[in-house]
Amino acid sequence: VTTEERDRRATRRSIGRQDWSSWPTYEASALGLPGRYWYPVMWSSQLRNKPVAVTLLGRPVVFFRDGGVPYALHDRCPHRGVPLSYGKQQFPGTLSCPYHGWTFDLATGVLRAVITDGPDSPLCGKVSVDTYPVAERLGMVWAFLGEGAGEVPSIDVAIPQELREHEFTMGGRIDVRRGGWRFAAENGFDEGHAKYLHRNALWRILKVMPTWTRTRVVAVDDGWITRVQDEVHWEAHFPGLGTFSGKRWWKRGGPKSQVLGASPSKAPSVDPVIAAMNVPGNQSIRVPGLLRIVHPRFIHYEWYVPSTEDEYIYVQLFVQFRVGMSALLAKLRYLLFVRWLFHGQFTGQDRWMVEAMHAPPERLYRPDISITRWRALCEASPKTGQAVIPPQTPAAGGPGLAEHF
Amino acid sequence: VTTEERDRRATRRSIGRQDWSSWPTYEASALGLPGRYWYPVMWSSQLRNKPVAVTLLGRPVVFFRDGGVPYALHDRCPHRGVPLSYGKQQFPGTLSCPYHGWTFDLATGVLRAVITDGPDSPLCGKVSVDTYPVAERLGMVWAFLGEGAGEVPSIDVAIPQELREHEFTMGGRIDVRRGGWRFAAENGFDEGHAKYLHRNALWRILKVMPTWTRTRVVAVDDGWITRVQDEVHWEAHFPGLGTFSGKRWWKRGGPKSQVLGASPSKAPSVDPVIAAMNVPGNQSIRVPGLLRIVHPRFIHYEWYVPSTEDEYIYVQLFVQFRVGMSALLAKLRYLLFVRWLFHGQFTGQDRWMVEAMHAPPERLYRPDISITRWRALCEASPKTGQAVIPPQTPAAGGPGLAEHF
Amino acid sequence: VTTEERDRRATRRSIGRQDWSSWPTYEASALGLPGRYWYPVMWSSQLRNKPVAVTLLGRPVVFFRDGGVPYALHDRCPHRGVPLSYGKQQFPGTLSCPYHGWTFDLATGVLRAVITDGPDSPLCGKVSVDTYPVAERLGMVWAFLGEGAGEVPSIDVAIPQELREHEFTMGGRIDVRRGGWRFAAENGFDEGHAKYLHRNALWRILKVMPTWTRTRVVAVDDGWITRVQDEVHWEAHFPGLGTFSGKRWWKRGGPKSQVLGASPSKAPSVDPVIAAMNVPGNQSIRVPGLLRIVHPRFIHYEWYVPSTEDEYIYVQLFVQFRVGMSALLAKLRYLLFVRWLFHGQFTGQDRWMVEAMHAPPERLYRPDISITRWRALCEASPKTGQAVIPPQTPAAGGPGLAEHF
Repeated sequence: VTTEERDRRATRRSIGRQDWSSWPTYEASALGLPGRYWYPVMWSSQLRNKPVAVTLLGRPVVFFRDGGVPYALHDRCPHRGVPLSYGKQQFPGTLSCPYHGWTFDLATGVLRAVITDGPDSPLCGKVSVDTYPVAERLGMVWAFLGEGAGEVPSIDVAIPQELREHEFTMGGRIDVRRGGWRFAAENGFDEGHAKYLHRNALWRILKVMPTWTRTRVVAVDDGWITRVQDEVHWEAHFPGLGTFSGKRWWKRGGPKSQVLGASPSKAPSVDPVIAAMNVPGNQSIRVPGLLRIVHPRFIHYEWYVPSTEDEYIYVQLFVQFRVGMSALLAKLRYLLFVRWLFHGQFTGQDRWMVEAMHAPPERLYRPDISITRWRALCEASPKTGQAVIPPQTPAAGGPGLAEHF
Repeated sequence: VTTEERDRRATRRSIGRQDWSSWPTYEASALGLPGRYWYPVMWSSQLRNKPVAVTLLGRPVVFFRDGGVPYALHDRCPHRGVPLSYGKQQFPGTLSCPYHGWTFDLATGVLRAVITDGPDSPLCGKVSVDTYPVAERLGMVWAFLGEGAGEVPSIDVAIPQELREHEFTMGGRIDVRRGGWRFAAENGFDEGHAKYLHRNALWRILKVMPTWTRTRVVAVDDGWITRVQDEVHWEAHFPGLGTFSGKRWWKRGGPKSQVLGASPSKAPSVDPVIAAMNVPGNQSIRVPGLLRIVHPRFIHYEWYVPSTEDEYIYVQLFVQFRVGMSALLAKLRYLLFVRWLFHGQFTGQDRWMVEAMHAPPERLYRPDISITRWRALCEASPKTGQAVIPPQTPAAGGPGLAEHF
Repeated sequence: VTTEERDRRATRRSIGRQDWSSWPTYEASALGLPGRYWYPVMWSSQLRNKPVAVTLLGRPVVFFRDGGVPYALHDRCPHRGVPLSYGKQQFPGTLSCPYHGWTFDLATGVLRAVITDGPDSPLCGKVSVDTYPVAERLGMVWAFLGEGAGEVPSIDVAIPQELREHEFTMGGRIDVRRGGWRFAAENGFDEGHAKYLHRNALWRILKVMPTWTRTRVVAVDDGWITRVQDEVHWEAHFPGLGTFSGKRWWKRGGPKSQVLGASPSKAPSVDPVIAAMNVPGNQSIRVPGLLRIVHPRFIHYEWYVPSTEDEYIYVQLFVQFRVGMSALLAKLRYLLFVRWLFHGQFTGQDRWMVEAMHAPPERLYRPDISITRWRALCEASPKTGQAVIPPQTPAAGGPGLAEHF
């Protein structure tokens, strides 16, 4: 059977599914996928010589910067359960609990001193708190955590290849949002909603949204799966009801500007870096929860970092491959428009849905092939840690790649 | 044995009861009595071409008016669990989910179109949400819901006979109040509390309340049970404690104006419609939770509509059988006084008690014959739907009617 | 073995303990120790002829003053569960429920009348609510409650001997604070935290705190156990980390003013009453949760009264043995300084920790001998009521007393 035939069969199978029993691992992942991964947590500029408390994958974690280096420890003093993030630094390389001065090594988590018990305190060296590997990339502090053990891969594995290999300018937002991280991820890669939910978003005020599409999901390299639209319909007549169309006289786009199956990499005025990415479609996702929306002249990324069962850290990044004065203008455009229209009102509509969504039970429909493929990707993800970094060769992806499942 | 003797025995049996095990059906009815009933929900003027979300009997329901006609649907899109009340109308006769444009028929609940899946979406006609019969009466939107199946009786069965047969003017209030609907209903029909709890209510500032009474409960037609006071005492001497009396020099009423066993229908300046009702007492209740307080010149109704286990919709209605200019004056009197004194401060004292009440355990006393008869009425209520509409003959009720139990 | 040797062994045994299984009675005492005790509840001036609702040991209690005498009853009308504290007094010696006028005897809790059921109400004398012994001392209203039965000891047993035998002036604060009463008590008697947590408290702005100590706990008379510091270290060098010291050029105290093992009773300018107390150390605690901090010229007391599982009534008292004009000045000093610096900001740091503490699990360290001795004292406390009042002889306590365990 061909890839297309397999896709069509998978789509048919997904219609009408009502629970998550086909994806038992995913169903059990309210606090994050199995395996350990690098997760972005906060802007580097937010972490100074003052503890910052964050809940990650259900665990309390305290972040602290010392001598310019960021650290992360389990945020609970083993003595009496007081958060270490309430404390402060008394000696270089350590953090002290505010209550009795239990003093932990930032790098190892080992108890180095107990101020109120004198230099010969017998517990020193025998008690410790968990620590988590920390790194900084893309202007953010990242932590590596999850279930399991083993070697810690380079933070490079978590950085999309195009961002490892090119210069760029960026802007972004980090919020804690209410709702499960899985609903946020599913909403991100969801084929169906953007056209309808966002049809009147200010960010789309001059651009027509399609009415409906026929979609496949293909696997590309670097761990991504990508949605490919085989058909795009700009309006539709629904028997007995009427015609629905996003077209308005003041909106650009629609049939005239659309080539079926075209990828953003092939758009007329495409950025050369984006052209070289040669992506088969403009929306991709990969574990442990990173969405990439590729437009001809910019890329939007979003991470869904599990915090509690009902909260996630939502990281939005807007990247343009510009340098010099052009980068400054891009940055200005971000601050003046994109931050408010796209990273504000547009994704605020998604926030509304993620908070309201309540599944299972659910009834899936054809465009939910995007959701079921994402769940299958999670189901098949390595259980023992983030994949090692792939060879640093230019992306060779594109339509027709072998499927991931 | 005579009716009176049976009543006296029932009263004795009710003294000191400590739990609800005598009324197992009632005890299990935190979210409404078994069987389906018509319930008032909101003012007709509150329902327009915009969805209104209401929790009824524990279920989310969305109300929507289309072409002047009110509809009610289960307020959850089966696709991903988003409330349909977040959506809007895209095609006549339908309501669309805001997320992916799943479009449901208002009258049948059947999925008519999925905007983002094109005209041939295979789920159309195969998925549906529950709908509830809706009607409008007394200026309100009503819904018919509950457990069970079968024919839907006319909304007439829910409208008191005197309101079906006469012209009147009315005013009212609808609130969501905290507390169980059963406590609200019991408080409404409660014989004992009004005299004491409301003794200083502004609404009663010029009128004496009795100190204590001897009471029977009789069944009359149209499903009502009514409290009949065989003795009314305006003051009492409590041995070793002192004398209690509601009499004050500035208050009217009391022994001079009271004829034992008199019904409001026999008061001197009674309204002709109220006279014709020939009620044996001024306070009546019937399933599924409608209280009627008949005064010589007006009737006050209140409905207790189960919402969640700890909230109910509290509907107050003040009716006067006036027409023309006299109706206008009555309406004005309602807006200036009754709304604030009676439907505000007076029933606000009830709100205070319903929120505070916590039973079982409880220790019932003689006047609680009103509560135990109400519970027995609920216990014996038909399990399969609201009683069919009774013959449209004038009420023949009065003291001495055969008892209901 | 000597007392010191036993102490050293007990200290070693306590290090590293991780749960409360050694103290099963204490572990089960979230709502108060077994046995009945006198607990302070509110200022006498706060109780007038108006009901005051308080939750004590998890139970709702209503306090009421009638004819100058304070009373306490279970705060729930047995009729329908409405709090009696919502009611008011209708007859001398009674309190009436606001709902139906059920009227309870303040002294016995017996139902004396039911206003809305007439003088012959058959439940009178047959229904009652629990009452609690109440007394007034130290300007406060006290109640005697807990599990068990038997005679009620004089309130004297709850009053520290020095306050029964001498004149004094006092000031204080009563708050309801969040957190378990056991954490509050442990924090109060905790040897380790004061030096570190409070090192920068305004109350200590002119006084050095030690860095670490070696501590024993000894039992003295009147039910107290007392911390005795065998070594006090004003600074310490922690290998590989650095030196820690509370000394600052503007702070008094430290090595020059400290005599090892000295008790406040032996300080140079000690108050004669405090000198006569001859206490072996300045911090003592006793069941059911009373802390005493003895300074040379004043004593601070604090009570931890269990309210709910996560709230306690925190009573602070500042006592000086002054009379006449000197007492007036002492009172003024309290209102101007002590109330804000000590009973405000200083113990506010304790509030912060008691709210944050979360144990077990825990890892105890050497100074936690104070906590484990307190737990052992609770474990061994009489299960049947507060100890009877000890002989009214002057305190003979001091270091070297026979141990309590």
